[in-house]
Parts: sequence; C-alpha cells; structure tokens
Amino acid sequence: MIIDGEAYRTIWPGEDGQSVEIIDQTLLPHRFEIVRMYTPEQAAHAISSMQVRGAPLIGATAAYGMALAMLVAPTDAVLENAAAMLLATRPTAMNLRWALQHMDEILRPLPEDERVKAAFSAAAAICDEDVETCRMIGVHGLDLIKEVAGSKGGGVVNVLTHCNAGWLATVDWGTALSPIFHGHNAGIGVHVWVDETRPRNQGASLTAYELTSHGVPHHVIVDNAGGHLMQHGLVDMCIVGTDRTAANGDVANKIGTYLKALAAKDNDVPFYVALPSPTIDWDCMDGMTIPIEQRDAEEVTHIPGALNDGSTTTVRLTPAGSPARNDAFDVTPARLVTGLITERGVCTASHEGLLSLFPERRKAG
Amino acid sequence: MIIDGEAYRTIWPGEDGQSVEIIDQTLLPHRFEIVRMYTPEQAAHAISSMQVRGAPLIGATAAYGMALAMLVAPTDAVLENAAAMLLATRPTAMNLRWALQHMDEILRPLPEDERVKAAFSAAAAICDEDVETCRMIGVHGLDLIKEVAGSKGGGVVNVLTHCNAGWLATVDWGTALSPIFHGHNAGIGVHVWVDETRPRNQGASLTAYELTSHGVPHHVIVDNAGGHLMQHGLVDMCIVGTDRTAANGDVANKIGTYLKALAAKDNDVPFYVALPSPTIDWDCMDGMTIPIEQRDAEEVTHIPGALNDGSTTTVRLTPAGSPARNDAFDVTPARLVTGLITERGVCTASHEGLLSLFPERRKAG
Repeated sequence: MIIDGEAYRTIWPGEDGQSVEIIDQTLLPHRFEIVRMYTPEQAAHAISSMQVRGAPLIGATAAYGMALAMLVAPTDAVLENAAAMLLATRPTAMNLRWALQHMDEILRPLPEDERVKAAFSAAAAICDEDVETCRMIGVHGLDLIKEVAGSKGGGVVNVLTHCNAGWLATVDWGTALSPIFHGHNAGIGVHVWVDETRPRNQGASLTAYELTSHGVPHHVIVDNAGGHLMQHGLVDMCIVGTDRTAANGDVANKIGTYLKALAAKDNDVPFYVALPSPTIDWDCMDGMTIPIEQRDAEEVTHIPGALNDGSTTTVRLTPAGSPARNDAFDVTPARLVTGLITERGVCTASHEGLLSLFPERRKAG
Repeated sequence: MIIDGEAYRTIWPGEDGQSVEIIDQTLLPHRFEIVRMYTPEQAAHAISSMQVRGAPLIGATAAYGMALAMLVAPTDAVLENAAAMLLATRPTAMNLRWALQHMDEILRPLPEDERVKAAFSAAAAICDEDVETCRMIGVHGLDLIKEVAGSKGGGVVNVLTHCNAGWLATVDWGTALSPIFHGHNAGIGVHVWVDETRPRNQGASLTAYELTSHGVPHHVIVDNAGGHLMQHGLVDMCIVGTDRTAANGDVANKIGTYLKALAAKDNDVPFYVALPSPTIDWDCMDGMTIPIEQRDAEEVTHIPGALNDGSTTTVRLTPAGSPARNDAFDVTPARLVTGLITERGVCTASHEGLLSLFPERRKAG
C-alpha cells in the first residue's frame, strides 16, 4: 500500500528492536499518525480502542504484543498473562485467538533466552504470511470480478462493500478489497459503493481513504442505501470481509452485513465473503453461537469528524438522556453467501466447501 | 404533543393573521426554535431544507404555503405559480401533491376576495383532519400492540421504527409512533428500538427527542443493527411510516426501510406500515415507479451535532475528495409488509386490502 508516495504496512517492528509501530486508525481519514508501542498493555489498548482493527491486523498486533511481552520478561507467567490480556480485548475476531495460540505453541517449548528473538520472528512471519494470503485472495477474487466484467460486456463492475476489509484491516492488500485493488491494477473498470458503516464509519473513513489513496473510483453511501441500489441494478456484486467464519459457512462480520446479504439474495446479486484461513473457526458449526461484542453506547450517540479548519472534534447526535445499544457484529447465514474467497480459491459457504479447499481439516472418521 | 410542559402542534397560523409558524426541525434535538413564515417561498424553503418533513406535515405546510400565497395576491396566476413552486420541493411525498390539489379545488372557484380566508380555513381543516387521522391510526395500531403484548403474556413489547413518523412528521400524534404513544398512555409496556436513520438521522434526533419528551423507554441503534436484533428475538414488531403508498400496497419510505422489511420477513417479525389515506397514490399500481428524491451528497459526507458546550457544529466524516450518493427513499414491496395501518383500520398490503377500507375508490367496471 502506498500513502503519499511511500510504501507502508499497517504494523512493523521499530528500528530500536524494543518496539512495534502501527498507524493510529482512529485518526483517519483526517490525520495520519504513527504510534509506537513498547508493552503488551499498549498492544492490548491499540486493539480495544481500535487504533488497529480488522481481524487479520488484530491477529498480527496480538502476535507482536506477545513479542513485547517477552521483552518485559520471557517467562511462562508473562506469556500466559499477556495472552489472556490480549485475548480479552475483542471477543469476535477469530484471528486473535489463532495468533495467540500460534505464538504460545512456538514460544512455550523454547528456553527463556531464545524467546524474544523467536517471538519477533514469529510475529514477522505472521505478517508476511498475511500479506501473501491477502495477495492470493486478490488473485482468486479477481477471477470473479473478471467473470462479472465479461458478463457485462466489459462495462464498469459495481462492487458494494461494507466496513473496511482493505489493507488497513490486514498487514497489506486487504481481504475484500484485495480483489478490487487487483482488478483496478489490471485495468478492469471497478467502481465501489462504500457503506459508511456506522457506528464507527470504517467505510466512510478507512475504505474511502484507501480507495482515494489508490485512485479507485467510488461513492460513499449510507448503510441504508445498498438495498435500494441493488433493486435498481446498480450493484453487480458484493464483497465483504469477516471476523470469524463458522465451519458451516456462516460468517460473523461488522454489524449490518446481514442486511446487505438479505438484499443481495432478494435481488440476485452475488454476495462474496473474503477471508484468510485463520479466520475460520473449525470448531464452530453454527455461526449464531459466535460471541458478539457489545461496545460503548457512546459510539452510537457521538461521532468524530473534521471541522472546516482541518481540526477534529466529536459531536453528540442524540438528545441528552436517550440511551443507545451498540452490537459490533452480526452473523450472516451461509444460505445468503454465494461463495467464500480464501487464499486457496473460492468455495461454497458450507462445511463441505471449506473442506474441499482445506482437506487437512477433514476429521478422520 | 407536550414539549417542556406546553402543548404544541408542529404548524399553526400566526396570531397576526399574516404568517404561519413552524418548529425548525433541523435544529432538533439540540435546540428548540420557532420559525415564522410570511411567504410561499418561505414555506417552500421550509419543506426543501427539511425544517419541516414527514409526508403529512409536508402536506400541511404546502396547504399553508398556498394560504400565504393568497395573502401576496389572490389571483389564479399566483395560485398556479405557488402550487408549482411548492410541488417542486420534494418529489416523493404523496401528501404534498394531494394537499396542493385539494387547495386548488377549494380556491379556484372562489372570487378573489374570499380566497385568503378560505385558504387559511382549508389549511387549518387539513391540520385538524390530520390530527384526527393520526389519532385513529394510533387507536387501530394499539390493537396490534395489544395483540403482541397478549401473545407475550404481558411482557414489554419491543417495537422497531425507522426514521421519524411521530408528531414531528405530522401535525400531532404521528403515524407509526401514534400506536406507540397510545400504548404507552394505556399503560402497556412499550420499548422502542430507534433506527438513527442516516443520513439525516431523523431517528436519533427527532424520534429519540419525541420519545424522551413523552417518557417512552427506547434505545437508539445504528441502521445496521435491526437485523441482528431480530435474529436474536429482540424485536416483536416493526412499525414505520411512508411517504407514498402505491395502490398495490408497495410503500416508499425513508431509505433503509426495505432492508428492515427484508430482515423482518427473514425472522418472522410482523412489519406494519402506518399511513393516513392522503399518502395513498391510487393511480400508482407499482411502487418501483415512484420517483425517488436525490439529495445533496453533503448530507452523507457531513453531519451536524452538538459540542460539549451545547453549541452545534457540522463535521466532515469522509476523506476530502471522496464523492457520495444520497438517495432519500426506497420502496418496500408489498410482499414484505404484514399490514397497513390507516385511519379506517388495518388491511393487507394489497390493492384489494386498500379497497376493502376505501371502497369509494373502487372503479366502476
């Protein structure tokens, strides 16, 4: 990803060997600021305050959080405490649990004096792997965009996306947006309908920021508008990300995804979900059992934005005294999903579909 | 309706006999301010800038706009020009056209020197009729709420509503909220899920303001959340308003209504639409042909709100350079609507259903 002509990832180790750096996404699109983290507590705060977000980037940040913990003291006790603290930050994203388990498996067998180096190296490997995984999601998703472009006789392909599943949600490339970036780079006309994605407006802030940075044509729309656009033939396909994919193909994603999937079904618009395999919860056979995070009501009653002079502030939207409720995710049943785009290819949203791409997960029986 | 202990309607003739007064709804919920209008141009501006909104109140304001036009000069030319100007303010609301036609039918046959008095009197009659109509919608809708309360064994009835179809959208009582106010007044436990209703947030501002003023328990939610709440059994029924009801039972209403109706259908939640009969377009047999207003993209990219000191400002949400699109309404097909609540009772969302309540509309054949 390129920001103002410079290549970035969303997370990287500090040059001092004692820190990890991230982009503070709560300030985007109005301000670009890098945060340096020295402790696992800072990594946990970055995740829970959503300075970093997006299932793959949450996983990568947790991995680096474990590396920072090993700098504090490379003991089993620190390992366990840091993992528990990081796991508690956000309950829905599968990659968080996956990354922490992976780090534990690598670090625990090692002697203490090897753990710091191994932890930084394992976290870096998770990041590199995520970049390659997201690149491959883009390659496979590009085939779907090409198909639609072909069936339209080469016209512009209108893709609707919800929330931010671009490079800011991953280490680079993104999941749902990776096929879009690949399509745009390949010279296919792609236009994106960007759901603003209340309450935190990751679409209007982060996705619009990425598409603007990359020069991809798009329009921001309110979350209410997607169904209407689909009724009028203005959406050719939907591609969204997911925070956890159940083994039966149900997908937990940012609140409101389910509503768009219903509209896609009602209007015969293909609805794809893009995911790296660490997002799959192989133990979960029913998406409705995925824990859904409840966040602060203030995210609904208040909203940050930029004033005319470029400074930022937060305004209250509701009357004083009106309470709000803030569920962060919903679950889209597999029956509404046309296909899952993974790093190994595209499959139906079903247990069999997932096993066809990940046969090593088939249980002997 | 009671605001700070004082009884109000949303529109009334000024004591000077030369003006009409309204509440400036663009300032709510943060500031309560009354605007005095002297000219039909001011009435048109009040409608197009959404100082007044809601199909019934738009109709009432247009009627008073015609009365103000007669004050300017009670000629046929002024009558025609004012009607054309007022009609052009907003294309979707049926009541606007209905009220202007009604005023024309009354005023045109009269000698010029009787027109001012007749116009004020006809506009007042439209207002009085709207109040009674909305009261009856509440009476009939209350039966539906009582049914649900009964089937729940007397527990709290959770009603989801979209946009504002309360007293601020009408002259008093409201359409979709009238059954809720009646239920609350009757001592039935009613709790309202208030969709914030981006882009203009009529839910978070106006509906929340009304419910707070009246003491009705509620939570504001983002527009993305309704489907998730329905999946989890947290919504017993939906009641929304409509800006135009096609004669086949399709309903045009605030953008996003269609998405909630899809979710209601998918979760077996009853989905009711409340409307006064002037909202029905008897000539339209297909809701998808209803003209949908396109509004300024800035309503999507910017949002007004209150700062900590109580002052209000507007903030930009999107990156500079990200375009937006702003469709104000969508159409919910009759197949998704459980029933229409009118001043004459409840019917199925179909031509036959509407004719059963309005048999005088049956065409001789």
